[in-house]
Amino acid sequence: MVGGGPGAFIGAVHRMAAGLDGQMEIVAGAFSSDAEKSAETGNELHLDPARVYGSWQEMIEAEASRREDRIDFVSIVTPNFLHYPVAKKALEAGFSVVCDKPMTMTVEEAEHLCRLVKTTGNVFALTHNYTGYPMVKQARKLIEDGTLGELRKVVVEYPQGWLSTLVEATGQKQASWRSDPAKAGASSALGDIGTHCENLVHYVTGLEMEEMIADLGTMVEGRALEDDASILIRYKGGARGILYCSQISVGEENNLTIRVYGSEAALHWKQEHPNWLHVKHPDGPEQIYKRGNDYVTEAAADASRIPAGHPEGFIDAFANVYKHAARAMRAQIEGKDGSASEFDYPSVQDGARGIHFIHTAIHSSETRSWVDASYSPPQ
Amino acid sequence: MVGGGPGAFIGAVHRMAAGLDGQMEIVAGAFSSDAEKSAETGNELHLDPARVYGSWQEMIEAEASRREDRIDFVSIVTPNFLHYPVAKKALEAGFSVVCDKPMTMTVEEAEHLCRLVKTTGNVFALTHNYTGYPMVKQARKLIEDGTLGELRKVVVEYPQGWLSTLVEATGQKQASWRSDPAKAGASSALGDIGTHCENLVHYVTGLEMEEMIADLGTMVEGRALEDDASILIRYKGGARGILYCSQISVGEENNLTIRVYGSEAALHWKQEHPNWLHVKHPDGPEQIYKRGNDYVTEAAADASRIPAGHPEGFIDAFANVYKHAARAMRAQIEGKDGSASEFDYPSVQDGARGIHFIHTAIHSSETRSWVDASYSPPQ
Amino acid sequence: MVGGGPGAFIGAVHRMAAGLDGQMEIVAGAFSSDAEKSAETGNELHLDPARVYGSWQEMIEAEASRREDRIDFVSIVTPNFLHYPVAKKALEAGFSVVCDKPMTMTVEEAEHLCRLVKTTGNVFALTHNYTGYPMVKQARKLIEDGTLGELRKVVVEYPQGWLSTLVEATGQKQASWRSDPAKAGASSALGDIGTHCENLVHYVTGLEMEEMIADLGTMVEGRALEDDASILIRYKGGARGILYCSQISVGEENNLTIRVYGSEAALHWKQEHPNWLHVKHPDGPEQIYKRGNDYVTEAAADASRIPAGHPEGFIDAFANVYKHAARAMRAQIEGKDGSASEFDYPSVQDGARGIHFIHTAIHSSETRSWVDASYSPPQ
Amino acid sequence: MVGGGPGAFIGAVHRMAAGLDGQMEIVAGAFSSDAEKSAETGNELHLDPARVYGSWQEMIEAEASRREDRIDFVSIVTPNFLHYPVAKKALEAGFSVVCDKPMTMTVEEAEHLCRLVKTTGNVFALTHNYTGYPMVKQARKLIEDGTLGELRKVVVEYPQGWLSTLVEATGQKQASWRSDPAKAGASSALGDIGTHCENLVHYVTGLEMEEMIADLGTMVEGRALEDDASILIRYKGGARGILYCSQISVGEENNLTIRVYGSEAALHWKQEHPNWLHVKHPDGPEQIYKRGNDYVTEAAADASRIPAGHPEGFIDAFANVYKHAARAMRAQIEGKDGSASEFDYPSVQDGARGIHFIHTAIHSSETRSWVDASYSPPQ
Repeated sequence: MVGGGPGAFIGAVHRMAAGLDGQMEIVAGAFSSDAEKSAETGNELHLDPARVYGSWQEMIEAEASRREDRIDFVSIVTPNFLHYPVAKKALEAGFSVVCDKPMTMTVEEAEHLCRLVKTTGNVFALTHNYTGYPMVKQARKLIEDGTLGELRKVVVEYPQGWLSTLVEATGQKQASWRSDPAKAGASSALGDIGTHCENLVHYVTGLEMEEMIADLGTMVEGRALEDDASILIRYKGGARGILYCSQISVGEENNLTIRVYGSEAALHWKQEHPNWLHVKHPDGPEQIYKRGNDYVTEAAADASRIPAGHPEGFIDAFANVYKHAARAMRAQIEGKDGSASEFDYPSVQDGARGIHFIHTAIHSSETRSWVDASYSPPQ
Repeated sequence: MVGGGPGAFIGAVHRMAAGLDGQMEIVAGAFSSDAEKSAETGNELHLDPARVYGSWQEMIEAEASRREDRIDFVSIVTPNFLHYPVAKKALEAGFSVVCDKPMTMTVEEAEHLCRLVKTTGNVFALTHNYTGYPMVKQARKLIEDGTLGELRKVVVEYPQGWLSTLVEATGQKQASWRSDPAKAGASSALGDIGTHCENLVHYVTGLEMEEMIADLGTMVEGRALEDDASILIRYKGGARGILYCSQISVGEENNLTIRVYGSEAALHWKQEHPNWLHVKHPDGPEQIYKRGNDYVTEAAADASRIPAGHPEGFIDAFANVYKHAARAMRAQIEGKDGSASEFDYPSVQDGARGIHFIHTAIHSSETRSWVDASYSPPQ
Repeated sequence: MVGGGPGAFIGAVHRMAAGLDGQMEIVAGAFSSDAEKSAETGNELHLDPARVYGSWQEMIEAEASRREDRIDFVSIVTPNFLHYPVAKKALEAGFSVVCDKPMTMTVEEAEHLCRLVKTTGNVFALTHNYTGYPMVKQARKLIEDGTLGELRKVVVEYPQGWLSTLVEATGQKQASWRSDPAKAGASSALGDIGTHCENLVHYVTGLEMEEMIADLGTMVEGRALEDDASILIRYKGGARGILYCSQISVGEENNLTIRVYGSEAALHWKQEHPNWLHVKHPDGPEQIYKRGNDYVTEAAADASRIPAGHPEGFIDAFANVYKHAARAMRAQIEGKDGSASEFDYPSVQDGARGIHFIHTAIHSSETRSWVDASYSPPQ
Repeated sequence: MVGGGPGAFIGAVHRMAAGLDGQMEIVAGAFSSDAEKSAETGNELHLDPARVYGSWQEMIEAEASRREDRIDFVSIVTPNFLHYPVAKKALEAGFSVVCDKPMTMTVEEAEHLCRLVKTTGNVFALTHNYTGYPMVKQARKLIEDGTLGELRKVVVEYPQGWLSTLVEATGQKQASWRSDPAKAGASSALGDIGTHCENLVHYVTGLEMEEMIADLGTMVEGRALEDDASILIRYKGGARGILYCSQISVGEENNLTIRVYGSEAALHWKQEHPNWLHVKHPDGPEQIYKRGNDYVTEAAADASRIPAGHPEGFIDAFANVYKHAARAMRAQIEGKDGSASEFDYPSVQDGARGIHFIHTAIHSSETRSWVDASYSPPQ
């Protein structure tokens, strides 16, 4: 693991998620750029001190030189600006990678990673963790099966309220780097949560963007990056969309929702009540699909660990990204195809699509005009 | 009453709403342009046949010539294209008017009505009925009182699904005229439900639009008018907004919702569960205000007829528009000021604002650009 | 109308409900035992002062002696102890009756009314208004059609919190008579809301009680009657039940709910969100039936006045009891059978069943034992 | 671990829960009475084959004889009839114990364990996992702080529908032993889920039972044990209660809910939406407390691993029982007091209370009478 030292939130999540099925174990780490802090975290995790490193470069080099028990993959849970250099070096050193989003700072970097994944043959999984929820997989299947008919409208939202005040001025760690262009990149809201929206729509519907117009705002005075974004989208094939993500929607926690309307039926899923999927019909009662029941699709069943009615949550879903990545790595180790076309995990191309989305939205907002949003990442 | 003959939906609603408090009675009507049908409805309503007319012109003239028991006001519940001529003639004949929305076909007509209301001194109430819900009045009061702080984001939605297929081709009465430009005007979705969104935001928040960009779509082939609209809005003072109305959001019934986010708190109201108002705070539990309790504001209390927990619905809210209009008319009859600045009913200026909104959105969508949306109707 | 004078809540509800469809008009009343107050209400209702009476005896006698325009029926909206004498006299005078529940003070009185309704042939409707909700009718139909299979368990609840303190000591009018045995009868909670539970179960499921054990409590010191009741029930045919009604469930408004579990499916309805009916299946998604849609049963459709998604509420449902009673009275006037076996309104037998239920529960609670709860009212 | 072999559900849950915080590791097991199956599970878990045993007796003896790396505690996840013998032997061998509920088959066994825990000084934690949810801890704190005032009414329910048909006849493993008196004990519904209800009430409110009357039913023909129970309860101090648990409430999953009404406020918690706690007030808006926010109490905050709005679920809550047990064991190892009075985990006394509850309810149902339900387990 790179990152996830003292005080970090997402590092602990990655460790719980990776460990949930007992198939992966953390054995080495560069948890902080401060060697002492890195050692502290390593100690808490009962790791062999020899494999707790003071820098990610050191870790990758040292681990690459081990024979028998070298690590299988690197989990990158750092602030955004480090994703690319760490991922690049890890891939080049022959390791698979699980990486937080947004994947890189620029489209060029993203595309370079696409090519590197292809040439190395390593597994690269991006933690668009919301795709790990069973009922998101159910939603995808319903659309794939044509239950919704021709898609017409998609409304995806991710309102949060945690940046309603100038939190970064208080020294809060996560707020500080997320609102710092040097560490977060060109975006705050879009990078952190907007890309989840974009990816969720793509995962569930398969739709590709054609055009967009974005209105980005910095609603809290003194903030360096946007904290609110509203985007209208036209998808290829004629569907229209609204994407709304915000860090200043006060009182909201992680209210990610997706609604998809087709010619035959509609679906509605809420992350804060993730075990239920609502399906609305023009000529019959609304249905609530619930995780863990016999009638759910295979992918949703595979993504569940416990019976219906016992709620699964965020960590369970996050663990599904790791579970699929682990299956892919095992396949790759066994000489088979471990790519995302074979396994159900967010790919390096999904990552590139996200980075392109961020930069397109910024461009649209700056020019105050509809812009071309179509994009095909290097395969 | 003008309109509301056999098979009409909204005419019956107006009659139930107007009669609920036992303060208004229907005594005359031109229910259809077909004299026979008009008589049929008059008969069902136990009206004096002498006061059931074959045309609205005839009705207004005949009633205007009565001395003692002439009608006090005209309810206009016709398709859109008749609102203006009937309202104009009624006002000119000295009657007050309760009129369905959208108020007119053009901005010019709307502004002419504004001036006519001023010069005649009659009451003119537009049935933006959703403002009649007690918890909408509570929402307005919370914002007026500053509970939400400075307003930052407004998301208003009105998805319906009833036009997901080409219903108008089946001869269904309401679908037929609503999708016919000659009878509905330049818009279907915006005129029927988009104006409710626009008005609800204005009523609850007091915000004035500055700019907008709209994306209007006709998602069902063969339809003459738009059936889906997504609009980004910038309000004066810095707040941003999303307005989404749709008649092809399959499976939706009348899912009007409004969310307002301020610097201090947020509120959320849903028309389909209208007795509850959610208020979200950054630093304390979410609150659910419920109609009928001692803690609600005076305007909300005044808008309720029964105790908390016994749900009030659409007709009850609609009746509140009539109740306030009746109070205003009584004031006006008594020689006092019956204008909307004194009483809580949607005014002729609200109507003009709605018509301007429709035409601005169409203009933005056609030019695919941000446009000026500011507007001050004649007072 | 008898009762419903100044300050009364339920009188106004009856008037709004009766008037909603424009088929009934109030023309006479004895609104209070205080002639002045009665006149005051009559005046507010724009009634002919000659038909506003100072006592119900006077009203029934005077109206009975009119020829052409005598009233068709009497609405009884008084405190409980007056239901029986007024109903008896009205029936004997040849009038139909709409009466509030609980129907009488004793089982003997209730059975006498049953016989009187039979011998006079008049219509007698009890305002178990919750049966007027469309989705309650839908629930009944699903069970009648066998969708739930063999019934196994029924859980019905009606928690309120308005008597959490000794409100009657403050002089609040309704609380005062409801907690006064001389006016309310032997029960407060059971009489006011427990009978609604009992009736709702009977209406929806058709189940007949066999045995019960009740635990009645007076949880607020100083109160003369019970304010909380929990009852276990065994129904004929093997189903079991729980009935919980309470006036001290603080924070609750009118949270009447019914859940019915069968061998094949279950249903769940909540009065506070009355437009939805949840149906749960062992092997498929939960369904939400919504009022106003094409797929609902005829009785539910007939009970709706407005389209789906525009909420109907308490008054709309209450009006359905009046609507069915009006149909029955019209039939009876035309010489046809107007009895509750032909029309869908709560009957005098339902009333007797409710009174028997109250007294059986009191008996069980006093003896702290299971008691026979079977009962067949006189037909 | 004892139990949790191939096909077992709860064993895997215990392992995920125990491992979530990276503080406990499974190192030995007797996963099945079939040595081959035990080995199979051991292999899947990557355990040292030498520490995978063919019987629990063998395991306890072998582990007790190890010096340096002997296990710290035994997790008992077997069918009910084995809980007692395994727990007894483990405690006697000097191990702490985490045990599934119901704790034993008889009250005598339960009380023997109470004494054994006292004399050995070992930690004994019962997995009443629902007490691990943060908002359950919040509920407890609100009551402890007096927010609800004097408690008056408690309604606790746990309806499930999975035994709506004679599943045990199909060979389904869990249904088979749960409905077999030799393996499950004297009860099915009460033992499996009724004890969770009883414990949840005790944990949240601190109330002690005084009397009860129970109605147990076997609603599915051919079943050996009860599958439905309704119980009325009187608590010491005057509060009344309803407890309803059922395995034949078709369509229900794990719909455990608790409602507590006091003189000042009420609370409502649902296991299927566990991150929210509703608090109702007589004179102010309803509140929704949400996990992960700054305003929650210390115990709730300590029970959370991720920020608000990212749902935690069943495993997260289950892990909290293990977390507290681990803290207690660590204290005990360090020579401090590891008892449940110092740490927040369900104790051996809670277990005894549950067993007494089961047998009291059976006795009440058999005698069809109110019975004494008071009980003080050996401390």
